[in-house]
Amino acid sequence: MDASPPHTDADGVWHGLQLAPGLAQPDEPLAEGEAASLVVHQGVLRWVGPAARLPAAWAQAPRHDGAGLLATPGLVDCHTHLVYGGQRAGEFAMRLAGASYEEVARAGGGIASTVRATRAASEDELFACALARLRPLMEEGVCAVEIKSGYGLALAHERRQLRVARRLGQATGLAVRTTFLGAHALPPEYAGRSQDYIDHVCNDMLPALHAEGLVDAVDVFCERIAFSLAETEQVFAAAQRLGLPVKLHAEQLSDMGGAQLAARYRALSCDHIEHLSQAGVEAMAQAGTVAVLLPGAFYTLRDTQLPPIAALRAAGVPMAVSTDHNPGTSPALSLLLMANMACTLFRLTVPEALAGITLHAARALGLQDTHGLIAAGRPAHFVLWPVAEAAELAYWFGRQRAHTIVRGGRIVQRGLA
Amino acid sequence: MDASPPHTDADGVWHGLQLAPGLAQPDEPLAEGEAASLVVHQGVLRWVGPAARLPAAWAQAPRHDGAGLLATPGLVDCHTHLVYGGQRAGEFAMRLAGASYEEVARAGGGIASTVRATRAASEDELFACALARLRPLMEEGVCAVEIKSGYGLALAHERRQLRVARRLGQATGLAVRTTFLGAHALPPEYAGRSQDYIDHVCNDMLPALHAEGLVDAVDVFCERIAFSLAETEQVFAAAQRLGLPVKLHAEQLSDMGGAQLAARYRALSCDHIEHLSQAGVEAMAQAGTVAVLLPGAFYTLRDTQLPPIAALRAAGVPMAVSTDHNPGTSPALSLLLMANMACTLFRLTVPEALAGITLHAARALGLQDTHGLIAAGRPAHFVLWPVAEAAELAYWFGRQRAHTIVRGGRIVQRGLA
Ligand SMILES: [Zn+2]
Ligand SMILES: [Zn+2]
Repeated sequence: MDASPPHTDADGVWHGLQLAPGLAQPDEPLAEGEAASLVVHQGVLRWVGPAARLPAAWAQAPRHDGAGLLATPGLVDCHTHLVYGGQRAGEFAMRLAGASYEEVARAGGGIASTVRATRAASEDELFACALARLRPLMEEGVCAVEIKSGYGLALAHERRQLRVARRLGQATGLAVRTTFLGAHALPPEYAGRSQDYIDHVCNDMLPALHAEGLVDAVDVFCERIAFSLAETEQVFAAAQRLGLPVKLHAEQLSDMGGAQLAARYRALSCDHIEHLSQAGVEAMAQAGTVAVLLPGAFYTLRDTQLPPIAALRAAGVPMAVSTDHNPGTSPALSLLLMANMACTLFRLTVPEALAGITLHAARALGLQDTHGLIAAGRPAHFVLWPVAEAAELAYWFGRQRAHTIVRGGRIVQRGLA
Repeated sequence: MDASPPHTDADGVWHGLQLAPGLAQPDEPLAEGEAASLVVHQGVLRWVGPAARLPAAWAQAPRHDGAGLLATPGLVDCHTHLVYGGQRAGEFAMRLAGASYEEVARAGGGIASTVRATRAASEDELFACALARLRPLMEEGVCAVEIKSGYGLALAHERRQLRVARRLGQATGLAVRTTFLGAHALPPEYAGRSQDYIDHVCNDMLPALHAEGLVDAVDVFCERIAFSLAETEQVFAAAQRLGLPVKLHAEQLSDMGGAQLAARYRALSCDHIEHLSQAGVEAMAQAGTVAVLLPGAFYTLRDTQLPPIAALRAAGVPMAVSTDHNPGTSPALSLLLMANMACTLFRLTVPEALAGITLHAARALGLQDTHGLIAAGRPAHFVLWPVAEAAELAYWFGRQRAHTIVRGGRIVQRGLA
C-alpha cells in the first residue's frame, strides 16, 4: 500500500496567472505584471513564481492554462451565524411599512422569533437551509467559513446548530470553524436570571459541547442589551480552562471595554467594534487580536458610527471583513459585496479589503497556516477570476463570478465565463 | 403554410405557484395564499388564476410543476450605461488610497477615461464586455433592459455604442431599449463650445442615428456640471420633431428645474432626482412621468440627500428602481441588490421596491403593455424564485438566484436549486 496522499485533479503546473498583490508569497520574485506559475502536487501548493524559474522537477507535470486570470487565495468568511430556522423578511417588510420595534415584537419578530424557529426546525431542515445560504458564498470562492451557534440557547438546541455546522463542512469540503455562542442572548426560560444562564453556559453547555468535539472557539455578545463584562469574563475563563480560543462581539453599540478584556484572553478577534476606544485598539495590537469589520450590519442598520479604521491601521491591527450573515441585521450572501462595502462605507483601501476577506480573515479563525495566502507548503485553495486587476474584486458590486475554484487540491468549479 | 406562432417550450399550464402581490393580474380571484396557475400558449400568457378555475380549454395542455415557487414578472432594468470600454477599478482604488479628484484626473481618470476607452475599443470588444456585464443581470431574471449611449460623444462612436446595444438584444433575446445620450458630457473636441456641441447633437447626430433605427428614446444629463436647462430643451425639441420619447438625468446634484421641463415634454422618466422640488414632483405626477431611483449611485457616492420619497408617494408618482450601471458611480451588477438598497437606504416599502424593478420600470421604458406584470395577453416573461414570500427578494442581499426564467415564452433557465 502506498501511504502518500493521492494525486488530485488540480495537480500540475498552473501557468499564465496574475497574482493579487499581497496575497501570495512567491518562492522566486516576480517582476511587476509578470505571469506567474503555481505548482500543485498531491493537493498541496509546492512552488509559486515566474514561469522562467520553474524548478526542473516540475517541468514534466501536467499543465493548466491560467489564461491571464487573476489568482487569489480561497476566500475566508470569518464571522457568520449561518445556521438558523426561518428568516425575517416579513419583519424587514413590516419595519419598512412603518411598524415600530414594539409592533414587530408583538407580531412575534426579533431574535426571539429566530430562536423559536431554530428550536422548532429539525436537524435536516437546519442543514438544508444553511446549505442553500452557503452555496452563493461557495460559488464566490469561499473555502473556509466560521459558523456560530447562538439561536438555540439551550444545550440540545445549541448542539443541533453546531452539529449542522460540522455536517456542512463534511458535505461541502469547506473548512468550517464552529464557534459556541451560547451567550448570544438571554433565552426566555432565564428571563431576569442572566447570571443563572451564564453559569449554565459555563458549567453545563460548554463542557458538554466541547467534550463532543463540537467547539472550535467561544464567543460572547458583550453589550448593554446582552451580557456584561463580568459575565463575558466568566465565559472566557471557562473557555480558557478547556483550552479553547475566544472571540468577542465587542463595542457594537457602545464602548463596554470588551476589547481590552478580550485582549487579556488573547482573543482571536474582536468583531463589530464601531465604538472601540483607543485603549481597546492598543490592547488588540499588543495581543495580536484581529479586528473583524462587518459592513453588512452597519449598512442594514443604517449605522453612522464608523469603526476607528485610521487608529486600527496606525496601530497595525490586522483587519478582517466578513458577512456577519444573520437573519436580523445582515442577511448578506456575498463576501465580495462586503469587500465593496468595506471600501465604500468604511474607506478601507482595496488591498486592505482584499486582505480582509483572505489573509486576516484566516488569522481570525486560527487558520493562518492553511488559508488566506497563496504560498508553497499550504493546501491548494485558490480562485481564478476573469478580471484585469485585483481592484475589480472590490469595485464591481452585486455579482461577480469566480472562473475557477480549487479547494483542497480539487477543482470544484471550472471555467465559468 | 401555418401563419400562427410556433409552440414554445414554456407552453402549457404552470401550476402550484405563488404570485407576488401586486405584480400579477389574475383573471379569476385568488384567495390569500391560494396556489395559482399560469397558462402559456404560443409564447403568450393566456390565463392566470386558481387551479380550480382553470378553463376547460387548457385542461389537456402539458403541465409544468411550479412546486410552490414564487412567480414574478421578468425584471426590468430601466436605466443603464452598460456599453463602454475599460473599467475604472484603478480609479476606485486610487481614491480609497487618498488621491484627490485632481490627482485622479491627472492620472487620466474620470469620465474622460471611459470616453477614450470606448472610442478606442472595437465594436466586438464593446459587445463582449457589455455581454459579460449583462449576464449576471440575465441570471437574476432581467428580461428587459435600457442601454444608453453617451461615452462616444461623436457620431461614429455613439453609433457604435447603440449598434452594440441592438446586437445585445439580438444575441440574448432580451428586450433592449436604446437611449441616445449624446448630451451626457461635453467631448474634449468641443471644450468651451457647449452650444456648438448641442447643435451638433440635435442637427446631425440624433437625426442620423434615428434614421438608422438606433434610437428608442433620448436622454440628457441636465446639471451644472453638464448641460443647462436651455440646452436640454433644445435636445427635447429635436427629439419631439422626430417623434421620439424623452427622459432626463435630473436634479441629481442640484435642483435645476429639469423635472418640470421634462414633464412638459411628457418624459417617460426623470432619473436620480435626489434634489427634486415639490413643484417637480407635482409636474411629474400630472404628466405621468416615472421617477427612476438609483440607489447604487447614491451608495457609491456616499450621498446623503435622499430623493423625496414621501412626496413622490403622496403625489402618486410611479417609482422605478434601477442599477444605473456605469463604470464611474455605480458598477452594480444586481438589480435585486438595488431593490434591497432602495428599501434600506431610501426606505421604500418592499412592494414599492418590487414594483420598482418590474411594473414601473417597464413603464419608464414605454414597455408597460408587454413587461413588468403577469397578465393574460402579454408575452410570457416570468421568473420563479425559491422563496417562501415575496419580501425575501428585497431582504437577502448580495446574491439570490432565480430558479426558472421564462422569457418570450422560452425557458431560458430551468430548475436551479
Ligand atoms: Zn455576529
Ligand atoms: Zn445614468
